[in-house]
Amino acid sequence: MIPVAVIGAAGYAGAELTRLVLGHPSFELKVVTSGQDEGRLVRDLYPALAGCELAYTAHSAAAVAEAAKVAFLAVPHTAAMALAPALLDAGLTVVDCSADFRLRDPDVFTAWYAAPHTAIDLLEDAVYGLPELWRDLLPGTRLVACPGCYPTATLLAAAPAVRAGVVVSQRVVVDAISGVSGAGRSLSQAAHFVNATESVEAYKVGSHRHTPEIAQALADLGLQEPTVVFTPHLAPLDRGLLSTVYLEVDPTLSAEEAHAIYSEAYAGEPFVTVCEPGVQPATGHVRGSNRAHIGVVLDVQSGTLIVTCAIDNLVKGTAGQAVQCANIALGLDETAGLSTPGAVV
Amino acid sequence: MIPVAVIGAAGYAGAELTRLVLGHPSFELKVVTSGQDEGRLVRDLYPALAGCELAYTAHSAAAVAEAAKVAFLAVPHTAAMALAPALLDAGLTVVDCSADFRLRDPDVFTAWYAAPHTAIDLLEDAVYGLPELWRDLLPGTRLVACPGCYPTATLLAAAPAVRAGVVVSQRVVVDAISGVSGAGRSLSQAAHFVNATESVEAYKVGSHRHTPEIAQALADLGLQEPTVVFTPHLAPLDRGLLSTVYLEVDPTLSAEEAHAIYSEAYAGEPFVTVCEPGVQPATGHVRGSNRAHIGVVLDVQSGTLIVTCAIDNLVKGTAGQAVQCANIALGLDETAGLSTPGAVV
Amino acid sequence: MIPVAVIGAAGYAGAELTRLVLGHPSFELKVVTSGQDEGRLVRDLYPALAGCELAYTAHSAAAVAEAAKVAFLAVPHTAAMALAPALLDAGLTVVDCSADFRLRDPDVFTAWYAAPHTAIDLLEDAVYGLPELWRDLLPGTRLVACPGCYPTATLLAAAPAVRAGVVVSQRVVVDAISGVSGAGRSLSQAAHFVNATESVEAYKVGSHRHTPEIAQALADLGLQEPTVVFTPHLAPLDRGLLSTVYLEVDPTLSAEEAHAIYSEAYAGEPFVTVCEPGVQPATGHVRGSNRAHIGVVLDVQSGTLIVTCAIDNLVKGTAGQAVQCANIALGLDETAGLSTPGAVV
Amino acid sequence: MIPVAVIGAAGYAGAELTRLVLGHPSFELKVVTSGQDEGRLVRDLYPALAGCELAYTAHSAAAVAEAAKVAFLAVPHTAAMALAPALLDAGLTVVDCSADFRLRDPDVFTAWYAAPHTAIDLLEDAVYGLPELWRDLLPGTRLVACPGCYPTATLLAAAPAVRAGVVVSQRVVVDAISGVSGAGRSLSQAAHFVNATESVEAYKVGSHRHTPEIAQALADLGLQEPTVVFTPHLAPLDRGLLSTVYLEVDPTLSAEEAHAIYSEAYAGEPFVTVCEPGVQPATGHVRGSNRAHIGVVLDVQSGTLIVTCAIDNLVKGTAGQAVQCANIALGLDETAGLSTPGAVV
Repeated sequence: MIPVAVIGAAGYAGAELTRLVLGHPSFELKVVTSGQDEGRLVRDLYPALAGCELAYTAHSAAAVAEAAKVAFLAVPHTAAMALAPALLDAGLTVVDCSADFRLRDPDVFTAWYAAPHTAIDLLEDAVYGLPELWRDLLPGTRLVACPGCYPTATLLAAAPAVRAGVVVSQRVVVDAISGVSGAGRSLSQAAHFVNATESVEAYKVGSHRHTPEIAQALADLGLQEPTVVFTPHLAPLDRGLLSTVYLEVDPTLSAEEAHAIYSEAYAGEPFVTVCEPGVQPATGHVRGSNRAHIGVVLDVQSGTLIVTCAIDNLVKGTAGQAVQCANIALGLDETAGLSTPGAVV
Repeated sequence: MIPVAVIGAAGYAGAELTRLVLGHPSFELKVVTSGQDEGRLVRDLYPALAGCELAYTAHSAAAVAEAAKVAFLAVPHTAAMALAPALLDAGLTVVDCSADFRLRDPDVFTAWYAAPHTAIDLLEDAVYGLPELWRDLLPGTRLVACPGCYPTATLLAAAPAVRAGVVVSQRVVVDAISGVSGAGRSLSQAAHFVNATESVEAYKVGSHRHTPEIAQALADLGLQEPTVVFTPHLAPLDRGLLSTVYLEVDPTLSAEEAHAIYSEAYAGEPFVTVCEPGVQPATGHVRGSNRAHIGVVLDVQSGTLIVTCAIDNLVKGTAGQAVQCANIALGLDETAGLSTPGAVV
Repeated sequence: MIPVAVIGAAGYAGAELTRLVLGHPSFELKVVTSGQDEGRLVRDLYPALAGCELAYTAHSAAAVAEAAKVAFLAVPHTAAMALAPALLDAGLTVVDCSADFRLRDPDVFTAWYAAPHTAIDLLEDAVYGLPELWRDLLPGTRLVACPGCYPTATLLAAAPAVRAGVVVSQRVVVDAISGVSGAGRSLSQAAHFVNATESVEAYKVGSHRHTPEIAQALADLGLQEPTVVFTPHLAPLDRGLLSTVYLEVDPTLSAEEAHAIYSEAYAGEPFVTVCEPGVQPATGHVRGSNRAHIGVVLDVQSGTLIVTCAIDNLVKGTAGQAVQCANIALGLDETAGLSTPGAVV
Repeated sequence: MIPVAVIGAAGYAGAELTRLVLGHPSFELKVVTSGQDEGRLVRDLYPALAGCELAYTAHSAAAVAEAAKVAFLAVPHTAAMALAPALLDAGLTVVDCSADFRLRDPDVFTAWYAAPHTAIDLLEDAVYGLPELWRDLLPGTRLVACPGCYPTATLLAAAPAVRAGVVVSQRVVVDAISGVSGAGRSLSQAAHFVNATESVEAYKVGSHRHTPEIAQALADLGLQEPTVVFTPHLAPLDRGLLSTVYLEVDPTLSAEEAHAIYSEAYAGEPFVTVCEPGVQPATGHVRGSNRAHIGVVLDVQSGTLIVTCAIDNLVKGTAGQAVQCANIALGLDETAGLSTPGAVV
């Protein structure tokens, strides 16, 4: 069993990591840290984890390094770059769920996150952890930068068409919907039940921090100087994220060819389903699972490929993907601990 | 008091019309018809309307014409075109909530609705009933074609920019989210609570019947040969519709100018609020009311104006707008019966 | 038009009062006060009230007395007893939604609310404002103590059987379910969307402050030394309250007699519907309305009358009932401003 | 690996069984049957089970007997008693989720289910499968009658007090709340999203078929001639069931003693948590898991023990409990395949 620490374990991403590590056949959860909830039992804060007798401790790089070989970071941006160097120096594999190591250009980071980057030397070693697109980079890596939830769904939706060279415009419209757990455990009027239920709204229109991350990855996939127009929405569900991506494509592309591009790109992928033509993915189908379901429609009249991708923002969008990346980085079965969905309905 | 009939009153749109007519200061509800629920009491089918002692009757043009001066049609497409001529001939004002009189070109109707148009001669007299955009056409009209729910929100979002001449691309991406009541009272797996709750999904991607209606109206507003790329989504709310419209605009347009275009366009409108810069509309804010709330954001980097519009699909999206149109057509106060929202939260 | 003030207008009860007063044919809203949100516009805090140009002011008895003839108090307990005397002295009619004037015995108040009563001399003049049960006390009264939301539904469910003398046990089990708006606008983990959605739980089991209020009223209705066993539950809806009341009854009572007791007790009541035998009330049927729907079932085997009552906790449970009481107190039509439900579905 | 069949696999209970069997370390899913959906792929009907390549087949006792050693029955009542004999004769272990083998007296079955019992000779061999209360009966059994969802939560709530002899009244009030999945996959107006969301209501008041099952088990636990007063409610959640049980207890019982009775009764139970004093269980905490969380409150004034029990109706309430029983019957680790909850929030 590989000893594991979850850093920032009292937030939703950390709690979901805790759940997945506890059920993982090769991981043993040794340490859970939380600044805010130090001393509390995991099972008191998250009664769903009733079998866990661990208590949250304050973060100590030394203690984590002594107890664990792998550290999952589920802390806010800037906190991860402060913690990662010591853990890496101590020999741990670090899987970071924050934004700190996703953007290769620290100036872009600073422009969008309004903070200097304090671990610039680590940026070139960090691997962007989206296995379906860049699996080969992961084995043996020591620092994984897990993608954001919106980029995960958006890139899985856009990548096959971009890589196939059928996208003819650099402008990509991304319209996405997320459940409320994406905003985390902190209280806010937006997440107050009475405001959130029976209502949908857009937020951070044109200014969400996942925008440059999507643009960087689209460029990596081969789209020249992409312009990302991104509008996230909040809907009354606790988990779930659906990204609808609009790609202007070569007018000679047929619907059959478009679908085949996706089917072939994801053939054999353990966690991706390309829906049959005419079928759309629903976030309810991936709730509690590490799966991504993708729908492909060619709007012939406008020459637009409309690709939808549904994930669970806390699993494939965060904690599940982190475990998937860790599995690959450590040479384990990629699906270990991730094979049973949380529910059928 | 003006005697009123609601035709097709047992569906959601018809029931909401029933509610609004019952509360209207100048209308007296005389007839409610329903093929399926003939003989049942309104208050049995809709306990919310507990004070209403009317029973549904089968449709009879003669009986309706004898009892009423105004008929609201809340029947499916093709049924409205079958019923309207006799009612018009009998001298009634007809306010139709179906699609039958929205599209001026009967061939376009046939192409999208897979049915011949059987009342072509009425098309040129029908007035498209979106008062905020074409109010002047309504006074005195005898046949109102109320817009669809998606076109209402989408056109209110797009119109000011289009009319101001700042939209530079004919391609308009419309990404919208609707509550489940939009699908009506009929049972389906998609509307089964267990499937609909905690899930979002797109549907009829690239093929929704509101697409040509939006395109026709955008052309009327001045956009040359518009191409509408439209993706509706289903979210777990009973009422509410949010349309997010992406307009490529003149790169010299500033955010202030963009907001001013909208503020001026809707100044004095009794049912439209343009949110302050930085504020987004939420469907929860217009639930049970005839209001439309609009958010305007200029994404400078991409030169895209992202306009969001929230309405209640059953009120401003259907029944409320029908009453608003009837008020204008009949020379009543435009807001009569529509001034109190259904809830604050 | 009667000038009206809403004191504590920025909370949910106050906002719902604001909505109802704005739509009332004989009331003119003059003042809205809020300690926390002084200076903000009503329409900014509650976009649903977009047409209201009033701003919240700090509370001043002098200013309220100068501007208004009626004051609705929607402030927390102990705040109402501090504000009411000056308003009454200035000649206003005071309709209080707090608990301060509901319990006639100040020691009981102190025992349950952990605070001394500072306006004991007003207790004997206060009228408990449940019109369907004690309508005759309301005309001309200057101080109305509006019942709590749970007592309203519970007493409407219990009263006919108690008054008819068929209840044979002093022990009354009350099991009730409320939506989240009952907990108010304040943020809490219990009201965080992610915790509240897709979950139900009991709270304040055996210790909710509405217990002595229910007991006092049951005694007033004629039940000797009642013992109330009360369990409130929280369910994932924003509005709505259902109380299920278990009454042990005379074993000779038949189901038909039981139903007749209720039908007769509420015959002619404008806001109460006794469901037909076999039909149960649903909170969704009274959402946004001042109605109470009641279901009556006799469990013959156990000799138990199981009565359910559904209300909207913010309307019949608070603001609507306050307006109904004010209407009666002031000699207006009891249903003024309360006749249109907020929605049909 | 033990070969397993799920009979009636296309309903919600069957689908949840499918999920759990697929993730079970000692089970291999061989057959899934469905009359209605014969020929369809599991992953088409339940996209959450995307990795499953099985198709539903029509039921054939011979085919099931050839392929499997264990059969889970998730068929309606009366169907199970028709299928079980042949499977038992063929040597299979049968775990039945229907009501057919729960009631020992076939006359009681007939009185409540309006059907004759056609496998009376099996009733005495059937073991009522509630491991926490009657675990010793399960090892080696060939026919398990899994309890209903309401009885499971209710009996876990009532049993410790009854067994401890502190319950002094034979009358037990059970007030319970269930999510909509409890009504199954069939379409109905009650389960239509627009009706079910934002609404709660009671149903089958005083006449739910789980009543005699609860009564039989309370008698087994030692309560003399129990009278069960049972009111189920429907709330807007897909999964989750909360039972609130009112037990009149010995007036000398203290709150500490009451809590100790429960803590001791469930000490060491892998799936039961007795909440700390002052803490209430929530169905959200057990969603997707086989756990039962229990809250214990003594209402001293009324001498009532109010016990709440939260379960996931499809897991501990049906499919999870069936797997737990099968594990014990077959000599496997009781928790096999059931240890990871479906979600943390």
